[in-house]
Amino acid sequence: MVQLTSTEWQNYLHHEIPITRDQGVEVVRFDDEGVELKAPLATNHNDKGTGFAGSLFSVAVLAGWSQVMWYLARFSIDGQAVVSRSEVRFSRPATGDFTARVEPPGAGDLEEFQRVLTAKGRARLQLTVRVFSGGEEVLTLEGNYAAISV
Amino acid sequence: MVQLTSTEWQNYLHHEIPITRDQGVEVVRFDDEGVELKAPLATNHNDKGTGFAGSLFSVAVLAGWSQVMWYLARFSIDGQAVVSRSEVRFSRPATGDFTARVEPPGAGDLEEFQRVLTAKGRARLQLTVRVFSGGEEVLTLEGNYAAISV
Repeated sequence: MVQLTSTEWQNYLHHEIPITRDQGVEVVRFDDEGVELKAPLATNHNDKGTGFAGSLFSVAVLAGWSQVMWYLARFSIDGQAVVSRSEVRFSRPATGDFTARVEPPGAGDLEEFQRVLTAKGRARLQLTVRVFSGGEEVLTLEGNYAAISV
Repeated sequence: MVQLTSTEWQNYLHHEIPITRDQGVEVVRFDDEGVELKAPLATNHNDKGTGFAGSLFSVAVLAGWSQVMWYLARFSIDGQAVVSRSEVRFSRPATGDFTARVEPPGAGDLEEFQRVLTAKGRARLQLTVRVFSGGEEVLTLEGNYAAISV
């Protein structure tokens, strides 16, 4: 897969996963410094006027998946990725627009991911994604992603 | 809160949580036999043409939350509910429309939930929600919900 810019990745998401367009998902960052996605409260609020749990999760799980896809491109591996498990903690309501940031995995974990994926054609990577709103953390996701080369 | 019918609850969801209308969430069942929500693949697919993880989670977490709100109405308690934690397992891809069903909690857990909520004005309930597509289970969610009376 060719390495895409933030704008190209956003277009890809909106085209391939159409509900992300309705959610207004924006790709703020998709480069070697990490992945960051944003979504507005206006289209993603719940009955209490705060962020809908399903939308907060969507942006978080998508950020982690985007990070895995970014690594596949960096490793010059044509492949796919899926989330297999996740643990989510909703620590407080999102009272405004919200942003999901992927924590960089440890260098050793990333090397192991690349090594196994190259050798066996499939590998797993655990990522932590944090969602912030108004400067406060509102959700933490621990996601297990599985990648396969095709 | 007044006990609503399935149709009234669907209208409430679409109005109060507008992204659920874009997702095409339907309330199949919202009565004393349980809660069941459905969503079409057409508006909720990912880049692989299967169910987007964020939409599968949305329908599951919404089904559990709907169940808690249904209990509040049955107990004649004016209140709100939020999800605080959840553990999610994506066991296989959803290859068609998908349906979330809430497992009935144990009678003892439900009585305790009602007792604590009535006595203290806040209580927690753990619910298991399963999402099915084409007769196969595709997602299992263990959700911790917190309810407060207002």
